Amino acid sequence: MIQVIKIGGGVLENEVQRNAFLRQFAAIESPKVLVHGGGRLATTMAERLGVETQMIDGRRVTDKETLDIVTMVYGGLVNKQVVAQLQTMGVNAIGMTGADGGWMKAVKRPIKNGIDYGYVGDVTEVNGAHLRTLLNNGLTPVIAPITFSAEGLLLNTNADTVASQTAIAMAEAMRREGDETRGNVQLTFCFEKAGVLSNPDDESSLIARITPETYTQLKADGIISGGMIPKIDNAFTALERGVKSVRITHSNQIQGGTIIEQA
Amino acid sequence: MIQVIKIGGGVLENEVQRNAFLRQFAAIESPKVLVHGGGRLATTMAERLGVETQMIDGRRVTDKETLDIVTMVYGGLVNKQVVAQLQTMGVNAIGMTGADGGWMKAVKRPIKNGIDYGYVGDVTEVNGAHLRTLLNNGLTPVIAPITFSAEGLLLNTNADTVASQTAIAMAEAMRREGDETRGNVQLTFCFEKAGVLSNPDDESSLIARITPETYTQLKADGIISGGMIPKIDNAFTALERGVKSVRITHSNQIQGGTIIEQA
Repeated sequence: MIQVIKIGGGVLENEVQRNAFLRQFAAIESPKVLVHGGGRLATTMAERLGVETQMIDGRRVTDKETLDIVTMVYGGLVNKQVVAQLQTMGVNAIGMTGADGGWMKAVKRPIKNGIDYGYVGDVTEVNGAHLRTLLNNGLTPVIAPITFSAEGLLLNTNADTVASQTAIAMAEAMRREGDETRGNVQLTFCFEKAGVLSNPDDESSLIARITPETYTQLKADGIISGGMIPKIDNAFTALERGVKSVRITHSNQIQGGTIIEQA
Repeated sequence: MIQVIKIGGGVLENEVQRNAFLRQFAAIESPKVLVHGGGRLATTMAERLGVETQMIDGRRVTDKETLDIVTMVYGGLVNKQVVAQLQTMGVNAIGMTGADGGWMKAVKRPIKNGIDYGYVGDVTEVNGAHLRTLLNNGLTPVIAPITFSAEGLLLNTNADTVASQTAIAMAEAMRREGDETRGNVQLTFCFEKAGVLSNPDDESSLIARITPETYTQLKADGIISGGMIPKIDNAFTALERGVKSVRITHSNQIQGGTIIEQA
């Protein structure tokens, strides 16, 4: 079993939440990979540097200056602080972007309908074997959501996508190694709610398990709607591509929350 | 043979010089390690952020804000840009600080005679076997001059020291592996001059080779003096601790310059 855990930048910015989360992560006994976002720190840094944050339809445009800030804050500050803290907890963490070891390649998102998101990466190729080598050497990858292109551009990339693509690539690498029993990757998205809730305002209304069948019903009944739909659709894509199960849970309860799996 | 090459931040800030240097580095056929400084970029960033750079006797004091800037600029921006560029040159580069893989530990420099340099690291322990593992897997480490302490502090560390300590640890790791013939590490310091010059104003006055005997004579004759003495003393320390030879050369001529070796 390999666990791929994604944590948002917001949790990492709060010292108490970060410590609590990292202690849980450190306690996981199986080989594990951490994917982190950068949260508001990049926005704060952009403001301090007087770089304007441009948004199109609620999505950040990554111009050259913003890319440099993202690379500094996510790839440098946040990544190294997490690595150093995990080291004190007995985890032999190694921080990286997609460029380090060349394992996660992307293309700069093409301009579409006149909209240019700038230095944003759409993942094209993931080398799961690279991470397997590190894991086999007792290392725990800590991944900042930055990929790179064949031209050597660094590219800002959605952290949820980096986490899914990592889990899928690990599952594929294990299948290629010919050991089906090891093709056992669990992907966990940690966020600020207890999991998928049947009533978004009631943290106790947790849906413990979702399968393709119950998902169809939950959508038909209007219990799952809005922003949760793309999240769960993504989860099913990961399952179809060989990931064993996907968990959506609160960062202070990384073994809890909602499990999404094939029936 | 393993080559450990140190390049200053100044060269990396200049696109033409950086490209020329990295192309030479990429062309080295033996396993290799790059250690880089950060140069003036951290100072520029501190100025933009309104963080005052404190100096004591010409040495930067690393307060908490400066440490964060150094971590962002050296560990994030410079490191990842070099890695991405090397990837386009066919080098499977992997960026790291001393915290990544926990391989270079330090202590925060103690306050002495009332002088507190802040978050500055004095190296205490280097795990050469970690870098050997990466090299054996076809990876090329690109090292930012940041170490970490047992308490999980990141620490700003002199890049020349990081390079020497890396070379010494690699030589020791190879000897421990019991293969004396592989205990063959060359350390190269690239800077803005052709090498050790007998006349500092004349780039053609290169001293091609220095041994302990000729060094004593060159110092007695006043030909080598000033800031070059600690550099060469450092080089001899590396030689005494198992490094085969040390080169001091211009960044545009990484196989040239002055070779320092035991007789």
